[in-house]
This record gives sequence, structure tokens and C-alpha cells, in this order.
Amino acid sequence: MTIRVGLLGYGTVGKGFAETIQSHQERLQNLLEGEPVEIASILVKNPTKKREFPHSSLVTTDFNELFLQDIDVVIDAIVGEEPAFSYCKKAIESGKHVITANKQMFAKHGKTLKKLAEKCDVSLGYESTTVAGTPIIRTLSQLLQVNRVERFEGILNGTSNFILTRMKENKVSFDQALQEAKDKGYAEADPSNDINGRDAFYKLMIVSELIYGKQPNWNEVFVEGIDVIRSDHIEEASFMGKKIKHIATIEWKDGDVRASIQPIALTHHHPLYAIDHEQNGVVIHTDLAGPLTLAGPGAGASTTASGMLEDLVHIFQKTNRKTHQLL
Amino acid sequence: MTIRVGLLGYGTVGKGFAETIQSHQERLQNLLEGEPVEIASILVKNPTKKREFPHSSLVTTDFNELFLQDIDVVIDAIVGEEPAFSYCKKAIESGKHVITANKQMFAKHGKTLKKLAEKCDVSLGYESTTVAGTPIIRTLSQLLQVNRVERFEGILNGTSNFILTRMKENKVSFDQALQEAKDKGYAEADPSNDINGRDAFYKLMIVSELIYGKQPNWNEVFVEGIDVIRSDHIEEASFMGKKIKHIATIEWKDGDVRASIQPIALTHHHPLYAIDHEQNGVVIHTDLAGPLTLAGPGAGASTTASGMLEDLVHIFQKTNRKTHQLL
Repeated sequence: MTIRVGLLGYGTVGKGFAETIQSHQERLQNLLEGEPVEIASILVKNPTKKREFPHSSLVTTDFNELFLQDIDVVIDAIVGEEPAFSYCKKAIESGKHVITANKQMFAKHGKTLKKLAEKCDVSLGYESTTVAGTPIIRTLSQLLQVNRVERFEGILNGTSNFILTRMKENKVSFDQALQEAKDKGYAEADPSNDINGRDAFYKLMIVSELIYGKQPNWNEVFVEGIDVIRSDHIEEASFMGKKIKHIATIEWKDGDVRASIQPIALTHHHPLYAIDHEQNGVVIHTDLAGPLTLAGPGAGASTTASGMLEDLVHIFQKTNRKTHQLL
Repeated sequence: MTIRVGLLGYGTVGKGFAETIQSHQERLQNLLEGEPVEIASILVKNPTKKREFPHSSLVTTDFNELFLQDIDVVIDAIVGEEPAFSYCKKAIESGKHVITANKQMFAKHGKTLKKLAEKCDVSLGYESTTVAGTPIIRTLSQLLQVNRVERFEGILNGTSNFILTRMKENKVSFDQALQEAKDKGYAEADPSNDINGRDAFYKLMIVSELIYGKQPNWNEVFVEGIDVIRSDHIEEASFMGKKIKHIATIEWKDGDVRASIQPIALTHHHPLYAIDHEQNGVVIHTDLAGPLTLAGPGAGASTTASGMLEDLVHIFQKTNRKTHQLL
């Protein structure tokens, strides 16, 4: 049986996913007991845009036509709340599994989709919504079941971290560092959500939902981006042996979830002090296993595809095989 | 139904496990759909040693008597190859699940036990053999299925790392730092295996088996401990802006597994540079997700118990529930 994928969007994330399906086909089949994975259909917004698609895929601008292809799983690789939410909802209601990398949509509608998926008995993968392929979501949901997570801290935006790192290391201004982030492809043409903390906020809300089963009231979360940081803040911190990092924190306190996102000056004793450049990292404070640090790339086509493929394998792997890596 | 545990050994690890079963009983039952977990029997070496046992447990010096208690899972919390291997083997052959924290035994006999467990259709958990409750084993085996692990580097011995950190930070001699490690309880009375690299070696072999399905020839692995390091090595490295760390490396090269364990001077660009004191850490170099860093405590009763309990929940959890943390 072929595993048939319906892909929403063919931007960086969608294209990266399709390409990785091809380059890792043999490996995937080994993991899926010989079942090939095929991109059956792709939903695009602009049909006239010139690009190469996998040759066997139906390319359409009509979401309903996507389903004509008899697909098993919908991959949400589009940006923003709508129409992504409506599409994912409809996919789940039609009995399809869903894998999303869409943090903005999932931060807001994750709870609804999770409930719906449970009701419709399908799986919902969202590893790549948060720190891309670095396995934050699965580590929290699977590996730390016995542990109580007392506090979670993270550097959740690579663009911000890159800018702060360059400002410190190269003594450049905020604007120069931002331009460099754009030149290197870390920052979007419009980097507002990165530098004002919104992007990190979405990821933190997804983590909050996962750890505590609820989110704080969005309006009550203190969110400050790195756009308030000037060179003299960086220098002052350096003088004290500190680095300014953009830290998203969530914890359970006085019977409720408390969250904040803001630039904080860290000493070198803090596990996130060493997370530089475009890297992301999180510290999970647990009652038994102690504080665990997990760090890796937080963005990029390849790591995002990795997280989505790990979700895919998790959904379709029939048996919990414990075999070693196939070389 | 009660989940009945047969515990081998009541030293630091065994006692820590039993105590955590009690302190986390409610949490465990939530994860295990109401099934209580009980230490049915405990195997000890010295029955005259004064200590407090869980009141409902049978305490015995006879392995065969352990089984009279009709147990579901055997927890191996003893040290060294034998009799641990024979006990685990017999347990598996008798249809019991096995969870072990015994790295020396598992490095040598892990492959045999894995095959046997598969044949006898029981589960085998060994998270705590390597970096205690920091989820290295499960991250490698579950989360990184799509990813090919190209190289693995680790600081796998907390005693060595503590000594190296103190020698650098406090400019003390090797012997002074070792004494401090003993005073703090990080080093055993006989710390030979820690400082000569043997302890890290066992863990690396377990990781090799997991990632590549095989181990290198033990005699061909270059193993150098930190017992060759003197204060002037540390100073020289510091002068160059480097830190000496005890690094265990494994990679696939020219069609075979290559492993080495030795002190290496790292620059601050290396992800393990910042892993200080008794912390352990690993870098997993993958083809898609990029290099991932995972760090946490590598020893201690509480984190070791955590890894074993995560194994226990993984074995006995009936359904793959995706609910949030229960508060």
C-alpha cells in the first residue's frame, strides 16, 4: 500500500518536504515496512508561478480537489491562521491524519484540532511547529511522562538569537545585524513577528498547551521583542560578563500558568547562555530528571521536513520496531 | 491489576527507584490507567545490612525466590556483568519485562538480551544505562528514525567532567579535584572506571549498538581517561581560549564504526564546551535535523529512577495517550 500525501502549500516548507520525501524514499520505506510515500496532490495559491513539482502529483488551487486523490494524510505547509485551520479541520473530519508546521494556526486552534482528531480517531503531528525538527514536542509528550515539568525556558526564535549574537560578537547595530540576518536568509522580508516576539509567543503557547493542558490568557502574557535592544544594552551586559538572550518562559505558579517573553541578561551559568547564532534551545526543568537542555536548528527547510517526516513515520509505523539504523 | 516489580539490588539505584515508586505513585497510576505499581520482591546480597525496605516487599538473597512473587517486570539495579546478565536472561526467558541501569553488563550483553527479548516477546528498557534519566536512548531510538546519525559525540562521565571543570575554574590539581568529587559524592570510593574512561566506554558501546546495530572491536577503540591530564595541560588550553573535555566519539566511516574516547581541547564554538561540572551532554549529528544537543545530569538516584520509570510507563502504558501533564 502506498501512503498518499496531500500537501498544502509549496513554499520553502512544502517544497522541502516534497524533496525530502524523494531523497529519503528508501529510508522511509525501510521504516514503513516497504510502503512507499507519494505526494498525491499539492494545493497551491498561485498556479501560474513557475516551479517544478513532483511529476506524479496533481497540482490544484482547489482544496476539495485535493481529496479527489484519495489521500491518507494532509501536510499543512502554509503560513497563517486561515485558510490553514479550515483545511486541517476538514481534513480531520474526513478521516485524514494531519501534520502541521503552522505555528500561528496551531497556537490558536491546536486544542480544537487535538480534540477533533481524538474524536475522529486520526493522528495529529505538530513537531515542526516548535523549533522545527529539534524534537521538543515529542520529548515533552513522550519522554517526560513521569516527570513533572516545573518550568520551561526557551530561545525559540533563530532570527532574534542571530541578531543578538552578531550585535555582541561583532559590535554592530541592531539594523546592521538585522540586514545580515536577511542577507543570510534567516529573516523574512518582513521580520516583524521575529523581532517583536510574536513568533516565539506562538511556539510558547503550543508548549503551554502540551505541558499544562492550557494556555494563559493571551492578553496577560508579557511579550517584549528584541526590537527594544540597543548596542549599549549589549555592551553593558558584556561588561558584567552577561549575554542578552530572548527568553520565553512558562511555569506553573499559584495554580495557574504564567508565561513571559523578553530579553534577559544571562550569566554563563545559564544553560541557554551558550546557544548562539541562529540556534534555538530549551531548558526543561523537571522534578526527577533535573534540568534537561535540548538545542538545535530552529528553522530551515531540511530540519522542518525532518520533524514532519518523524511525525509521518510515527503515524504510519505499524509496529514499534526497535531495530537499529539501516545503513 | 497491580504491576508487580522484582527489584535486583537495593543500593543507591535500587533504593532510589523504590522510593520514587512511592513518591510518584499517584502520577504513575494516572499514566497507567489506575494500575498501581508495587515492589513485590527485592533481591539483596547482604541480608544482615540494616536498612528500611518497602513494607509489602519480600526481601530475599535467592534469585529464584524473587519469581515466587509472580512479578511482571524485573528491575536490574545491580552493578557489574555477573550475576546481572544471568538474572536478566533468566527473567526474559521466564516472560518478564526487564529494565536495566547496568551499563557494564548491557555494553557487553545488550545485543544478546535484545534478541532474546524479541524472541520471548517482552520489552527491554535501558534508558538509564546511558546518561541516567536524560533521554538519550529514547531520543536516538524513537525520535530520530528518519534521520541518519552521522556522528555522535558525548561527555558521558560526570565525575571526569566535574574534575576537569574544577581544575580549570579553581586552578586546583587533579588530586584535589578528585578529592572534591569524592566529597561531593560524584566519585565512588574507587573512581578508576570514571577517570580511566572505562565508564564512558561502556555507554558509548551501548550507543553504538543502538545507532549502528553493531559495536567496534573493543580492543581497537582508543580509550584515554582524564588521568593523563595535568594542571599545565588545562592552563595551556585556557591560554588558547579552550577547555579540555573528555569526549567519546562514534561515527560511521569507510564502511565501519569508528570510536574513540579521549580528552580533547574544545573551542567555545563546540556545543559541548559549555557543559560543565557534573553535567553530561551529547551532540547528535544528523543528516536532516542538523546537530542536536541534549544535556542533563548523568548520574544520581533521582534521575536514574526517572529513566527507569519512563521505561516502565513506556512498557505498561496500554494506549498511546496524548493527554497533557496531570496537575
